Amino acid sequence: MDAATTGPVAPAAYQGAPGAYSESAAWALLGPNAPLLPCVTLRDVFDAVASGRASQAVVPVENTLAGAVPEAAELIVAHDVAVAGETIVQIDHVLAAPNGLRLPALRRVLSHPVALAQCTRFFQDHPAITAVPVFDTAGAVPLALAADDHATAAIASRRAAALHGAQILAEGFQDHVENWTRFLLVTPASERSAPPVWPHKAMIACRLRHEPGALARALTPVAARGVNLTRIESRPIHGRPFEYQFLLELQADRDGQDLQPAIDDLAREASWLRVLGIFTPAPPLA
Amino acid sequence: MDAATTGPVAPAAYQGAPGAYSESAAWALLGPNAPLLPCVTLRDVFDAVASGRASQAVVPVENTLAGAVPEAAELIVAHDVAVAGETIVQIDHVLAAPNGLRLPALRRVLSHPVALAQCTRFFQDHPAITAVPVFDTAGAVPLALAADDHATAAIASRRAAALHGAQILAEGFQDHVENWTRFLLVTPASERSAPPVWPHKAMIACRLRHEPGALARALTPVAARGVNLTRIESRPIHGRPFEYQFLLELQADRDGQDLQPAIDDLAREASWLRVLGIFTPAPPLA
Repeated sequence: MDAATTGPVAPAAYQGAPGAYSESAAWALLGPNAPLLPCVTLRDVFDAVASGRASQAVVPVENTLAGAVPEAAELIVAHDVAVAGETIVQIDHVLAAPNGLRLPALRRVLSHPVALAQCTRFFQDHPAITAVPVFDTAGAVPLALAADDHATAAIASRRAAALHGAQILAEGFQDHVENWTRFLLVTPASERSAPPVWPHKAMIACRLRHEPGALARALTPVAARGVNLTRIESRPIHGRPFEYQFLLELQADRDGQDLQPAIDDLAREASWLRVLGIFTPAPPLA
Repeated sequence: MDAATTGPVAPAAYQGAPGAYSESAAWALLGPNAPLLPCVTLRDVFDAVASGRASQAVVPVENTLAGAVPEAAELIVAHDVAVAGETIVQIDHVLAAPNGLRLPALRRVLSHPVALAQCTRFFQDHPAITAVPVFDTAGAVPLALAADDHATAAIASRRAAALHGAQILAEGFQDHVENWTRFLLVTPASERSAPPVWPHKAMIACRLRHEPGALARALTPVAARGVNLTRIESRPIHGRPFEYQFLLELQADRDGQDLQPAIDDLAREASWLRVLGIFTPAPPLA
């Protein structure tokens, strides 16, 4: 159908509501005019790409306080997609509340579980205030306003607070100022383009033989080529208790020429390996 | 005070309510008559040990479907405690409901977030049923009964369902039958006893120099000694974005003699290292 080929570009899917940090990451990766599709869960994001309702996706992969977002990596492995880019977004929470609410009256604070975990100090200092997990930081703001009980606030971005006309009760609300989330740009595998020029970064899923020394043997030739292992995560293999699948990120330190040979070295030691993507990181977005 | 030394032993703390899988793990590790202290959060568990209200703790460290319980490892690292043992418990969920509730009327299912994640297939097949996270599997059963709306059930152990007189609507409720959780026995560091005899297992937290090849260099001498790296997890270091602390588990395959030299090798490559415990695993509890 002509409309499908000449019509508007399908949007990029992200998890959360307008005002979410994922939305900022999508703008950083795709430009401020890119059409976006907010989704309730990460699974919905990947479903949107698989069905064609979204052309690509922007998903969080790790946070410098909370650690990995394992579901994101597992959904990438489970789908026919490729990682095509990444960006890093500074997470700077505010406490957003209905106008007129004052801190002593506060009893409930809504936010995404990871955002709640980034603000544990506040909840330790205020044991009478309950942390209530909801699906998204930005989506927590209208929920807190709708509660209309003069006792409910939300942890979200300044942008989400402004979008909904909430007052800001507290700024810099997270436990630690160094709070960054890394987001990946995920495209259908069929659209995987030629690897970019320097600096190359590769994201790989692999399984090693279940024997002593397997990981050391797999990593040694990679290190010998001067390729840096920037991250390693082990995830369970369903149906094979206490065996693991590894998610590795490799970064070439010179012209990217060593990256493919290092991946080939790894593949020789692996019982299974899939290159999830080779891409060039974007600069951090503060 | 005499009462403190001759009185009853302080209980072992666990997260959850009676009927929880953690309670089964505590019985496996400490015997069926050990006094236990149920706690709402993992943080409460460690607070109970730190304050002396509990003599020790039993905490989950990983599940074969959901992966690591990162908060448990971080609380161990943050406290003056040692890992003194481990056991593996089979997780076999039932759908527990008030008497008279039938599946078509079901609208809400309460459980611990990890248990909900282990039953994603059910929620995909029943989009009209909402998964509601609560603090514990066993604690979800009385909550579901108290809802008294003929529409709310809980995912929990058969034992938790029986404790509260709930009917069992479905058995073997998790996505995959190979569903096991590994639990650690955690004691105050001052009570760390002599390392046990064969087979030795060690749990270690360390930071490596932030340079290419650091992990390969650290693991190679360990492998050369025939000591098996049974698990590796990287966790963020707060305040140092995108640098990582590793949690390693090593297992000696012969008489345990090689374990300490392997730890010494690792310590030479590490910028910081702490042995969290050397212990003998207990057999799995099915």
